[in-house]
Amino acid sequence: MRISELSSRSGVSIATIKYYIREGLLPAGRPVAANQADYDEDHLRRLRLVRALVAERGLPVSTAADVLAVLAETGTQNGTDGTDGTDEDGAAGGEGRGVHRVLGRVFGAMDTARDRERAASEAGLTEVRRLVTAMGWRIHPRSAAVPALARALDALDQLGVRIDCRTLLPYARLAERTAEVDLDLLAAAPAGSDLAEHAVLLTVLLDPALLVLRRLAQEHHSAARQPDPT
Amino acid sequence: MRISELSSRSGVSIATIKYYIREGLLPAGRPVAANQADYDEDHLRRLRLVRALVAERGLPVSTAADVLAVLAETGTQNGTDGTDGTDEDGAAGGEGRGVHRVLGRVFGAMDTARDRERAASEAGLTEVRRLVTAMGWRIHPRSAAVPALARALDALDQLGVRIDCRTLLPYARLAERTAEVDLDLLAAAPAGSDLAEHAVLLTVLLDPALLVLRRLAQEHHSAARQPDPT
Repeated sequence: MRISELSSRSGVSIATIKYYIREGLLPAGRPVAANQADYDEDHLRRLRLVRALVAERGLPVSTAADVLAVLAETGTQNGTDGTDGTDEDGAAGGEGRGVHRVLGRVFGAMDTARDRERAASEAGLTEVRRLVTAMGWRIHPRSAAVPALARALDALDQLGVRIDCRTLLPYARLAERTAEVDLDLLAAAPAGSDLAEHAVLLTVLLDPALLVLRRLAQEHHSAARQPDPT
Repeated sequence: MRISELSSRSGVSIATIKYYIREGLLPAGRPVAANQADYDEDHLRRLRLVRALVAERGLPVSTAADVLAVLAETGTQNGTDGTDGTDEDGAAGGEGRGVHRVLGRVFGAMDTARDRERAASEAGLTEVRRLVTAMGWRIHPRSAAVPALARALDALDQLGVRIDCRTLLPYARLAERTAEVDLDLLAAAPAGSDLAEHAVLLTVLLDPALLVLRRLAQEHHSAARQPDPT
């Protein structure tokens, strides 16, 4: 299809499509004439994935590129290369191992360069490590999530809201149950689907939906708790 | 203090501080000489709040400005104006009513103009309304959260992942318990603290921390579920 059809079917403007191609988020079309290229269904699908990561999940373009690079390396685009999301040494462990590896690498990619520049405070890191120990979580010592959580606590602390390990515990227990729902959903992925891409969709792209669910629940409960206006 | 000290104490570059002032996120300093202005502790605190909304929470600058405008209207900056976060007709309901109003307006402000442009599908809206009914949630009919959730489902649907009301239910139940923890935490806010600002900190700024907790729990559980590599 022409770029105009790719644009109308995806709802993404031609200028933005060209920008994504320049930034390496989308492969260029197959040249068919001077100043004209042909795009196929794979382009459309990839463009929708880019759009979801950038517009829906709100990732910076460079971060979305890093996440897509992880998916490409783990052999994802259509799952027909026989690896089913396991990476180079994944054959030893099968699918469970493959998903774990992909998630670790995707989460690593999602820490933007800007995030890595800001060091977390020692106090914040200590609270997060206490929480991980209290939950009995087995976390990679260099997991990007540990400083990321510490930085989030630092930001609140600077604004006068002190969130310590004890305050976080009930949230962590609920997060644990949420992760169990996530992994059950992932285990129920239809046969033949691309496991690595499915893992990204159900983790990264479900984030905004879960935040909105919390907003809806907050709206209901703050209304339920308010005194009767009469 | 000079802008250079404001920069070093906040960790925000002078160029970025000037940009925030131009965009109306931060009030200008008090002019003391040609090309020189004086900033105080209120500027520093406000700058940290802007930084948390933009860098930590990832809100677009224009959205952060809308959220700050809601806080300013509800009389927040230091809580000394006697309204304690209740708005014009809040006297009838007291603090619970004030928090509910502020949350509703902040959530409305957080829907960026870009989000509002993209219409949610009827199918997505139907699933969200079914979920709200199934949960027994009392939600404002024009709540921005309803189309926001429908759009998140639409994005997944376009990528071949169908999330319906039944799939969302376990997540909604966990979100409900999370919101209860949120509101308990808010109810325990220290006396004299600014209730509206506190509500924003514990809802909007806790979002990234909760997403990271989910990532940590996913990392632990996907490791726990992977087959033993030996």
